[in-house]
Amino acid sequence: MTIPIAIEPVSRNEAGIATALPLLAQRFGERFAQSEAVRQQHGHTLTWLTNQPPDGVVFVESTEEVVEIVRVCGEHRVPIIPFGAGSSLEGHLNAPGGGISIDFTHMKRVIAVHGEDLDCVIEPGITHYELNEYLRDTGLFFPIDPGAEASLGGMAATRASGTNAVRYGTMRDNVINLTAVMPDGSVVKTGNRAKKSSAGYDLARLLIGSEGTLGVITELTLKLHGIPEAISGGVCPFPTVEDACNAVIMTIQSGIPVARIELLDALQVKACNAYSKLDLEEVPTLFVEFHGSPASVAEQSEGFGQIAAEFGAGAFIWETSAEARNKLWKARHDVYWACVGLRPGAKAIATDACVPISRLAECVGETVADIEKTGLVAPIVGHVGDGNFHVTMLLDISDADEVERAAGFVGRLNMRAIGMDGTCTGEHGVGQGKMKYLAAEHGAGVAVMRTIKRAIDPDNIMNPGKIIAAN
Amino acid sequence: MTIPIAIEPVSRNEAGIATALPLLAQRFGERFAQSEAVRQQHGHTLTWLTNQPPDGVVFVESTEEVVEIVRVCGEHRVPIIPFGAGSSLEGHLNAPGGGISIDFTHMKRVIAVHGEDLDCVIEPGITHYELNEYLRDTGLFFPIDPGAEASLGGMAATRASGTNAVRYGTMRDNVINLTAVMPDGSVVKTGNRAKKSSAGYDLARLLIGSEGTLGVITELTLKLHGIPEAISGGVCPFPTVEDACNAVIMTIQSGIPVARIELLDALQVKACNAYSKLDLEEVPTLFVEFHGSPASVAEQSEGFGQIAAEFGAGAFIWETSAEARNKLWKARHDVYWACVGLRPGAKAIATDACVPISRLAECVGETVADIEKTGLVAPIVGHVGDGNFHVTMLLDISDADEVERAAGFVGRLNMRAIGMDGTCTGEHGVGQGKMKYLAAEHGAGVAVMRTIKRAIDPDNIMNPGKIIAAN
Repeated sequence: MTIPIAIEPVSRNEAGIATALPLLAQRFGERFAQSEAVRQQHGHTLTWLTNQPPDGVVFVESTEEVVEIVRVCGEHRVPIIPFGAGSSLEGHLNAPGGGISIDFTHMKRVIAVHGEDLDCVIEPGITHYELNEYLRDTGLFFPIDPGAEASLGGMAATRASGTNAVRYGTMRDNVINLTAVMPDGSVVKTGNRAKKSSAGYDLARLLIGSEGTLGVITELTLKLHGIPEAISGGVCPFPTVEDACNAVIMTIQSGIPVARIELLDALQVKACNAYSKLDLEEVPTLFVEFHGSPASVAEQSEGFGQIAAEFGAGAFIWETSAEARNKLWKARHDVYWACVGLRPGAKAIATDACVPISRLAECVGETVADIEKTGLVAPIVGHVGDGNFHVTMLLDISDADEVERAAGFVGRLNMRAIGMDGTCTGEHGVGQGKMKYLAAEHGAGVAVMRTIKRAIDPDNIMNPGKIIAAN
Repeated sequence: MTIPIAIEPVSRNEAGIATALPLLAQRFGERFAQSEAVRQQHGHTLTWLTNQPPDGVVFVESTEEVVEIVRVCGEHRVPIIPFGAGSSLEGHLNAPGGGISIDFTHMKRVIAVHGEDLDCVIEPGITHYELNEYLRDTGLFFPIDPGAEASLGGMAATRASGTNAVRYGTMRDNVINLTAVMPDGSVVKTGNRAKKSSAGYDLARLLIGSEGTLGVITELTLKLHGIPEAISGGVCPFPTVEDACNAVIMTIQSGIPVARIELLDALQVKACNAYSKLDLEEVPTLFVEFHGSPASVAEQSEGFGQIAAEFGAGAFIWETSAEARNKLWKARHDVYWACVGLRPGAKAIATDACVPISRLAECVGETVADIEKTGLVAPIVGHVGDGNFHVTMLLDISDADEVERAAGFVGRLNMRAIGMDGTCTGEHGVGQGKMKYLAAEHGAGVAVMRTIKRAIDPDNIMNPGKIIAAN
């Protein structure tokens, strides 16, 4: 069936593609794939957007190889789509005009760890889990954790964040510099390793969140953080979603430096109980975590406990053992799969609204009412400390009426968030799915984005058909 | 005399200027100034770069007025130079091709304070002191503090930071969104007030640090922070500059969330004693400050005290009263004037190197040796928690040999910092003074910056001759 999301069309340059493919095949041999299965897997595979596979996939091993591909594709005007772990939720990986997917799963090296400077240099294909596994004995960790096992290149490209962002910031804040291959094949390193710099335009921040439309990220220098001396956390049930939101608002306003504060509505808790074998009360619930010295963690927990009680929270269940805590956060990370389990055969589609925290309870409240009115099965989970929440709609994709209603709901939610001085995407990015909301959110800024895109990528070979229409 | 710093020439469009001036004079009446004194004051007035005054100054009162000026100047290809408080140190305010200075000292309004969201909306002419004065009864503050009484628009334009950045970040991190008038007269608001967003290119971060070369900032939404429950701080003397640096490195590596940690070398302490009536021992000294709950501040202080002792620190003098603390930080902020007092009649020229913290002791050590070898009077002060330090050269500007030696020293220092994976400017910006180091620091990135500049400002009317040469 046809999903009522307008996808930006990109015309296919058949002649260019026909010329470039054999050149790349010859150059990369077994590391160039054209099989139907590999191509489909490198198109968009999650959510409801149509899969638009690339014409070929190159498994690259170095920045220099990316330069070679960009040169070939640039000469023949063939689209390039960078591919990390495939966890994108907005069609970033689709190839609406065909072209070459650059797969970074062979580029997972940790090039350097500068423990004394709290940074590391990595290749973009490594995931945040793998990086933290590598760092395990250093006493350091990389905090950004979007749930999905995403690659760090992809996380930078979409300006990802996740559960820890409320304390540690997003990819915007945790990339010190990056190396990117630009459309003309030049290799740009956006800066050195100094903690700050005022030397010229912030090209790192321009590329972070550009979703592969300006250049291909091939190396990243990331901030690291010391593993906290003490971590504590737990689970806190609330009478209503609004009560939980209000407790979050008060916690943030009180300056409690909470490391994670996640909302799950009753349906989401039910899904997690079933999928992750938890036995939580099926009511709106906050998962919280505090990082710091033992004294500071105790102080934070106490402060939060008082606030939660003011908003009618039930008994706070503390998980002091790392094992119990990990089970809880594993469940949090698995919500996508837990949701899928809630309605077998359904497609799970996640929204990504984010509003100023003062509007959070109102925005979630109106959204819950809208879900009910629209008649959707759609649990809510969110990084509510940042005002960001996801509605995971579970859709029978063969039911045109249901899909139509869901699309209407998504449109209302995005405009509601923008109308509350927020954004249609807190962390998933624009991709193909949210292009139509950009004008509402950015007004005249869209023209500036387009000017930059055209100037840097005049032939529109870098992930065309994403973020902004080229014309 | 001629200062051996190459200033990028910008050709004067005499006809355009002759046409635009009367139009602006007629439109803005008494708020349009052309007197020699006002023009000179709006050119560059600090450091050793030649004063290049604009042809006229408009004291604007709204975004709409800025649009009008940009439209007139755009039509007649007349340069526009935004002016905040005039505290720039790299010639940002000069008008090498003449043109119009847009003075924001009439735009100092606080438009909104959203206490519940920890943000505020302001006009760009307000200084950080004035903003904090305004916020005084709210329990909130804006932490970025570059010492100079700079305007927040100018601080955003140069990506400024200062003493608190080690804990609270720089202007990059503390601007939520901004409004800018672009060269075509369009008004761009770079986003809403959500704490994070993945919706398109990060235009706020592109404009922050662009030094007025891409657009004119007319409004800012800033992050605010709760005034810490407890603040403690003091002064700690060290046997050598390297010992002090090593104590800083260890403090940062230990994860102590120090709010300020500033190094003054013996000569700087001497200057401060004289200017600010302090009686500190004239040896390398750290000024430190801790923010947090009473328990956390005590914990941080104790941790720092142990580290300082390991590096041979003398008696740590705690200043617990707000009054004594304010006197100390007032002295820190007045170092520029204290330095000037050290050699009456001399011109004070500040460098701005910033290196990864692991290289700090080495970089400062080599720099101290270079100062001695070069025979300069040049105290050192710095935001060493970020690896950023300033050498304030006190020069007899009429002594060609001394000026020549100083210029050589600056060049070596900037290249030393870049060679240590750092930057020639941690917070002052590029302006006219540091353009020649940009290629060494950014390589192929300079071409990307130029591409962006040309695309957004094809007629090069926005602060021409700064950051990158247009051709």
